[in-house]
Amino acid sequence: MSVTDELLQNAERYAADFDKGHLPIVPDRHVAIVTCMDARVNPFAIFGLHEGDAHIIRNAGGIVTDDVLRSLAVSQRLLGTEEIIIVHHVDCGIRKFDNSEFLDQIEEESGLRPPWGSDAFPTLADDVRQSVARVHASPFLPRKHSVRGFVYDEKTGRLLET
Amino acid sequence: MSVTDELLQNAERYAADFDKGHLPIVPDRHVAIVTCMDARVNPFAIFGLHEGDAHIIRNAGGIVTDDVLRSLAVSQRLLGTEEIIIVHHVDCGIRKFDNSEFLDQIEEESGLRPPWGSDAFPTLADDVRQSVARVHASPFLPRKHSVRGFVYDEKTGRLLET
Repeated sequence: MSVTDELLQNAERYAADFDKGHLPIVPDRHVAIVTCMDARVNPFAIFGLHEGDAHIIRNAGGIVTDDVLRSLAVSQRLLGTEEIIIVHHVDCGIRKFDNSEFLDQIEEESGLRPPWGSDAFPTLADDVRQSVARVHASPFLPRKHSVRGFVYDEKTGRLLET
Repeated sequence: MSVTDELLQNAERYAADFDKGHLPIVPDRHVAIVTCMDARVNPFAIFGLHEGDAHIIRNAGGIVTDDVLRSLAVSQRLLGTEEIIIVHHVDCGIRKFDNSEFLDQIEEESGLRPPWGSDAFPTLADDVRQSVARVHASPFLPRKHSVRGFVYDEKTGRLLET
C-alpha cells in the first residue's frame, strides 16, 4: 500500500466524523499566514487555528514570490483578509544549498534550466525582511497595516519577531 | 489587540508545551501535498498528519504554478519525497470570479496589471487534471510514479479522486 493510500484511509475517518460543513468561505480571523512547506511547521498547532480561521499559504521557504502575491491578492481583495503573518524557520532546506548549484544540477540532468530559483539572503532575518518588504512594495495588495515577520525555531517551538 | 497579537499568545502556549524538537528535516512519510489556502481545508486533520510527516504546499486554488514546481523540486531533489497529492475543493474562491475582471479591477485601482492570473478551467475536475498534468509535464521533477488528484468537499469532509 502506498503512503497516499494510507493517508486516504485517514481521510475517510476524518469525513466519517465531520461536523464543519457550515463554515463560510471568508476566514473568521481575517488573517493570511505565509510560511514554509517544511513538515515540522504546523501553523494550525502553532497559532491555535481551527478550520475556517485563516488562509494558509505555503511554499519552499515561505518566500513571498509572485505566486504568493497572487494568493494574497485573492485573499485580501476577494475574501476580506486584513492582516498578514510571514513565518520562516531556522532549519530551512532552502538555506542548506547553493541556489546556483541546485539549478546547475537540474540543468545537467534535464537539459533545461528552471525559470525559477530559491533565493536566500545572508541571514534568515534578512530573508524574512525581504519577504515583508515585497508585500509592502506590491501595488496589488490593498491592506498593509499589519504585515509582520517571524522566525520559527523547530527545536524549541518558539517564534521570534524580526 | 490585533488578531496577530492574539495568535502570538496562542504561539506562546504552543512553545510552552513543545516536545517535537527532535524531528528531522526529511518528511517521515516522504509525501508532498499541494492544496488550496482556503481556511476550511486542514490537511493535517484530513490526512491524519503530524509534525514531521509531509511537505504541505498551499496557494490560492492549489494550482500547480511555477512556484509550486519550484517547491516540489526542492521537496523531491533535496528532501527525498516520493509521492505527490493534489487537492482542490468544491467551494473554491478562485472559481467564483472571472479572472479577467479581477485583473481589470486591480489594474484600474493600481495602474498596473499583475503579471499573474488565477486560471480556472471549465470544471473543477478539469482544474485538478490540469495541475496533475503540469507535474507530469515538468522536466524538473524526478519522481512521478504517484501523482494523484482529488476534489475535497468542505460541506461533507470527503475527498473524491479525479
